[in-house]
Amino acid sequence: MALQSSLCRASIQLRQLTTKVPGARFYSAPVSGSIPASKRKYVPTSGTYPQGFKVSGTIVGVKPKNTTKPDLAFITSSTPCAAAAVFTKNKFQAAPVTFSRALLQEQKNSGLRGVIINSGCANAVTGKGGLEDAEKMAKAADKVLGADKSTIVMSTGVIGQRLPIQKILDGVPKAYEGLGDTHKHWLTCATAICTTDTFPKLISKTFRLPSSPSIEYRIAGTTKGAGMIHPNMATLLGVIATDAPISPSIIPPVLKYAVDRSFNSITIDGDTSTNDTVALLANGAAGGQGVTTEDSADFTAFRDVVTDFATDLAKLVVRDGEGATKFVTIRVAESSSEEGARKIASTIARSPLVKTALYGKDANWGRILCATGYSLISEPGHAVNDVAEIIPEKTNVSFIPTDGSPELKLLVNGEPEIVDETRAAQILELEDLEILVRLGTGDKEATYWTCDYSHEYM
Amino acid sequence: MALQSSLCRASIQLRQLTTKVPGARFYSAPVSGSIPASKRKYVPTSGTYPQGFKVSGTIVGVKPKNTTKPDLAFITSSTPCAAAAVFTKNKFQAAPVTFSRALLQEQKNSGLRGVIINSGCANAVTGKGGLEDAEKMAKAADKVLGADKSTIVMSTGVIGQRLPIQKILDGVPKAYEGLGDTHKHWLTCATAICTTDTFPKLISKTFRLPSSPSIEYRIAGTTKGAGMIHPNMATLLGVIATDAPISPSIIPPVLKYAVDRSFNSITIDGDTSTNDTVALLANGAAGGQGVTTEDSADFTAFRDVVTDFATDLAKLVVRDGEGATKFVTIRVAESSSEEGARKIASTIARSPLVKTALYGKDANWGRILCATGYSLISEPGHAVNDVAEIIPEKTNVSFIPTDGSPELKLLVNGEPEIVDETRAAQILELEDLEILVRLGTGDKEATYWTCDYSHEYM
Repeated sequence: MALQSSLCRASIQLRQLTTKVPGARFYSAPVSGSIPASKRKYVPTSGTYPQGFKVSGTIVGVKPKNTTKPDLAFITSSTPCAAAAVFTKNKFQAAPVTFSRALLQEQKNSGLRGVIINSGCANAVTGKGGLEDAEKMAKAADKVLGADKSTIVMSTGVIGQRLPIQKILDGVPKAYEGLGDTHKHWLTCATAICTTDTFPKLISKTFRLPSSPSIEYRIAGTTKGAGMIHPNMATLLGVIATDAPISPSIIPPVLKYAVDRSFNSITIDGDTSTNDTVALLANGAAGGQGVTTEDSADFTAFRDVVTDFATDLAKLVVRDGEGATKFVTIRVAESSSEEGARKIASTIARSPLVKTALYGKDANWGRILCATGYSLISEPGHAVNDVAEIIPEKTNVSFIPTDGSPELKLLVNGEPEIVDETRAAQILELEDLEILVRLGTGDKEATYWTCDYSHEYM
Repeated sequence: MALQSSLCRASIQLRQLTTKVPGARFYSAPVSGSIPASKRKYVPTSGTYPQGFKVSGTIVGVKPKNTTKPDLAFITSSTPCAAAAVFTKNKFQAAPVTFSRALLQEQKNSGLRGVIINSGCANAVTGKGGLEDAEKMAKAADKVLGADKSTIVMSTGVIGQRLPIQKILDGVPKAYEGLGDTHKHWLTCATAICTTDTFPKLISKTFRLPSSPSIEYRIAGTTKGAGMIHPNMATLLGVIATDAPISPSIIPPVLKYAVDRSFNSITIDGDTSTNDTVALLANGAAGGQGVTTEDSADFTAFRDVVTDFATDLAKLVVRDGEGATKFVTIRVAESSSEEGARKIASTIARSPLVKTALYGKDANWGRILCATGYSLISEPGHAVNDVAEIIPEKTNVSFIPTDGSPELKLLVNGEPEIVDETRAAQILELEDLEILVRLGTGDKEATYWTCDYSHEYM
């Protein structure tokens, strides 16, 4: 299982070519510049970070012209962590994905000390040499941490080019020296993994577990997207760290559950890159009784904390969809199956006709209905579909205003409503919008988050 | 089985709403105007039409303001036809789809005399009243043809509004009076089914069958797309008529085979409407030995004729994708399965990142590779994919210039090529482009046709 509905992607490039072909796009990824005014509210000015973790962001110049933006992120724990990662399902998997998957398997999800991440080059479609580079990065990190086979690797950036590996190896001791646990360290680390992102994505929270109500645990994480105009540098990466005591056997099911409902429930352009990776590390530094079995109250509580946390991180990626003007929640409720609800929500979220209508502030229930109607159809050659989840006469579509005002019904039991035009216009003026599809066939539901397609996307 | 990967769609609308909401799109569908200079070459000035068929296009004013564009098409045969249709798989099926499917089943694919089609209103999401309207249209046509249960119905246009049924019923006798078999009649008929199409789509050809080499059979057909900016009127419809003698039992498998490889192998925006329908009628008026079994040379010959013909029609729909600047053939070859090849071609053809790169004249093999790599991945929750069709080290990606010059290799056996920039720029300047992906895992292949996403699309 792996990241898939994620986003923009790894787009790679014959960079020389694109800069010379008339009309081609340019990939400058000016992340180091200022954060747009409209996005500043998403960047925290303080945080509470998990004990025992130290992080850094270092300038190594993966891209030769980069002399100002940190491009090597290092996330470390002073003690061994339980860890898991969810990787891209793309058949063309980048070297760091192959390396890190194998390491986590070999280590049985335990004994991890760090994650080292470079931006600027994805180390994808780089063959055997690329795999050796990924291993060298990990070993350099292992060396400074003083622990063998303890570091996983991520890369994001241009596909089809080898890493400037010596620069990175030379940068690792510097990254180690720069480690720290302040908000500034975490923010610099979050900046180091960015490519075309317009703002660093960092969240931290506290939580408690039923078995140890007196202990305040901490969880922090960073992610990066997801350009739409310049997706050659856009891979989805995410790292989540906590000081709660979690057994190695517990980490994979928790992360899988969380990612299915967060990073795998967002879409910007529907593509899935060669490098997408989300990792979860738990070092237990805050103490307390360990979460060791799946049938405990602690397990459920921790799983839900991670799911909510990952959802918040994933939403930040959607907020940064390039050219996007709207943040749209697609909720499909009253379904006879959760899988069906998820597929329908995904199909609506990916429909170019829905996404352009939203940009056009067009209350087009028909496009939503169309996408719903074809979401569960079989492939060509299969028998006519017989979809239990959808009964046209039971289908309802509404806009849920994000200002708390009453819903606007567009379709009720399969019949079009006479819509209050002024009200529709007001709702569509808001940056955030929720589209609610009630299927009336059950009690399961699923939610997707997406953005609109604007002119800028093209 | 039904149309599904087709195209733009049925988009429907709260038209009152959209015309008043600031920033909303307008749906005027000015098809009656002049044909763009760049499209004139696709409109024939003469044709050879099948014997025994008469057609017309009549102005009935389905949209109240329409007083100049034919909007009721009537295709008739003087003798009963064997007939079949492939319908949309969208769960929200329009009334004419429901009606026509039932009629063809009841009539066991024989005894058909006509197809009546209105543009301007899709008669979709119109409930029981809509179904009665579809039946009334058919019965009015039956009446003038003097044959009971002999007419199938299609509609295309706005969703969620009832047909102005009396206008249409009043127009049927006029449509009957207007029937004729000249090129002008066929072209007017082709125009009558258009909505946002910029040109009428009409093709006619002749062919022979092995068993009757002395007889020249004729086949003619019309189709309509597929706006991208104004998709509220965009349903895929198609009607193909031939004077070859084909048994009722032969028509469905032939049409299904042809549609899978033609109308189901094109994509503009990836959506599938509530009304999509393609029908095939054969009246046998040209005589000769009938095609009665699937294991005959005639069957194979006829199937291939219809497939090629349907492919030519489907390509015209892609040529008319609104805002599109390129006609792109995606060929996936050397696959271990045809189904896999088709899925990969479909995924590349739908990728917004590929489509925007093509518009940007960007030789971005990475986006093509990415789309290939995620094309066969499982749904969330499923096991890690194990895709036999794709082996990264065996994958090749090339541009095939449509001017007959040698291919430009972008990726060879999974390794990026050093690309001749000047050559790439030349190839990307051409209106037509073929992307060839060779998987190196077998000998099956599949082809998709698509267009780019331009600024105009938004």
